[in-house]
Amino acid sequence: MVKLYKLPIRIYYEDTDAGGIVYYANYLKFAERARTEFVRSLGFEQREDLESDDKFGFIVRRAELEYLKPSRLDDLIEISCEVEDVKGATVEACQIVSCNGEERVKIKVTLVYISLAKMRPQRVPEKMVEKLWEYKREVL
Amino acid sequence: MVKLYKLPIRIYYEDTDAGGIVYYANYLKFAERARTEFVRSLGFEQREDLESDDKFGFIVRRAELEYLKPSRLDDLIEISCEVEDVKGATVEACQIVSCNGEERVKIKVTLVYISLAKMRPQRVPEKMVEKLWEYKREVL
Amino acid sequence: MVKLYKLPIRIYYEDTDAGGIVYYANYLKFAERARTEFVRSLGFEQREDLESDDKFGFIVRRAELEYLKPSRLDDLIEISCEVEDVKGATVEACQIVSCNGEERVKIKVTLVYISLAKMRPQRVPEKMVEKLWEYKREVL
Amino acid sequence: MVKLYKLPIRIYYEDTDAGGIVYYANYLKFAERARTEFVRSLGFEQREDLESDDKFGFIVRRAELEYLKPSRLDDLIEISCEVEDVKGATVEACQIVSCNGEERVKIKVTLVYISLAKMRPQRVPEKMVEKLWEYKREVL
Repeated sequence: MVKLYKLPIRIYYEDTDAGGIVYYANYLKFAERARTEFVRSLGFEQREDLESDDKFGFIVRRAELEYLKPSRLDDLIEISCEVEDVKGATVEACQIVSCNGEERVKIKVTLVYISLAKMRPQRVPEKMVEKLWEYKREVL
Repeated sequence: MVKLYKLPIRIYYEDTDAGGIVYYANYLKFAERARTEFVRSLGFEQREDLESDDKFGFIVRRAELEYLKPSRLDDLIEISCEVEDVKGATVEACQIVSCNGEERVKIKVTLVYISLAKMRPQRVPEKMVEKLWEYKREVL
Repeated sequence: MVKLYKLPIRIYYEDTDAGGIVYYANYLKFAERARTEFVRSLGFEQREDLESDDKFGFIVRRAELEYLKPSRLDDLIEISCEVEDVKGATVEACQIVSCNGEERVKIKVTLVYISLAKMRPQRVPEKMVEKLWEYKREVL
Repeated sequence: MVKLYKLPIRIYYEDTDAGGIVYYANYLKFAERARTEFVRSLGFEQREDLESDDKFGFIVRRAELEYLKPSRLDDLIEISCEVEDVKGATVEACQIVSCNGEERVKIKVTLVYISLAKMRPQRVPEKMVEKLWEYKREVL
């Protein structure tokens, strides 16, 4: 039985463009909202990291988007967040945008946990790694 | 007893800027989300209008924003939507952004219902006007 | 003879929405681009302020937008920046968006120079005030 | 001798986030600006396509971004646009974001020319294909 984190997102005018569909860059915004809420659901707030002395945070090192079907104004899409791997400072995640069971966009991202002050990678905090694996075990 | 429509909105990285606070233009996005959800809660979907032959929709004719306090990453703000007047093609609304009871931004907008094809004002549909007043009466 | 600062801006897909016109919040982005380039043309870089120990910067205290005509994909608009007053920490500016001589949007903004660390108003640096008035005198 | 299309882009507050760097989704906006200006430099305006009866346009089918170095407020970046292949309805392009000779982001996009009304692929117009190859030959 799969327990996959999913965030529902409503499409507003701000998300669309003159072609009548969601502007392609905005899916990266949706993807980050889902990652943030997923990590928050595990008990982590990004702001604490950002306001710490050394300013920590995840940055995206790589992103891959496959656009399968367009989304439109008023659509209520869902975007999943599945962590595929965590190694050192790096997290690999897969995120699917869907609407009424139809796959719309597939996103793969590689995140790196860094000190924003030094722009240098840092091991993902042990507590977060544990929580991520714990969630994954429940999924499988 | 006041029944005021309010939409909760979470602040994500996409909403902030290098000053560490929510970028000032984004409150107009939040305001439109709240107006859209308010009108949806009354039973209206913008997309039907947009996809009709003549393409109808609200455009903003005037907006006034007073920025009282900044918002930051992870804040869970609320934004209200109160229609103050409806006359012909014009709707006046007042929207307050708040967080934990603290007022953050006050927004006043004047909307005009138009045919997007002709860019010409059209009376706000009677059914919507009725619903708006009905809601207002309940509020007072 | 008037010497009015103007920044040309091209309208891209990212700026438009499903209504086929520029999304209303984006004019505040254009307005800030014009203010930034105007101040840069006078010899000031915002980043220096932002990276100083105390992190300084302008925040917008008030904005008023009057939307007269819509803009569309590929339009080459112009946006002006005219400082109307500088007092203490406060700057009043008027900005007009136009295209081929047609006025599109009128924007009035009140800016406050603050310490971002303390979120407290600071006198606009004397050197900047001088440059602003100098520019204004040349205009009149 | 290489003649590579490059568009200079200034980084404004709107482009940055609370981490102090350019928000990752915005590079897709920059990429589209560069593609648009490149195609405009060859004599094509997207709006004509969009306003034609059948509403044509390019949509992105796939995008791949590799984030090498962050960009910051006030940076004057450059983004290139190099068409790698054109086949039927599909265009493959490579775009590099750089600043002072330092590579910041590498982007690969697959575009499909479609009828937006029917959301169906259409051969890229012959005139555009010719111009694209002509430009490429000059590059090599």
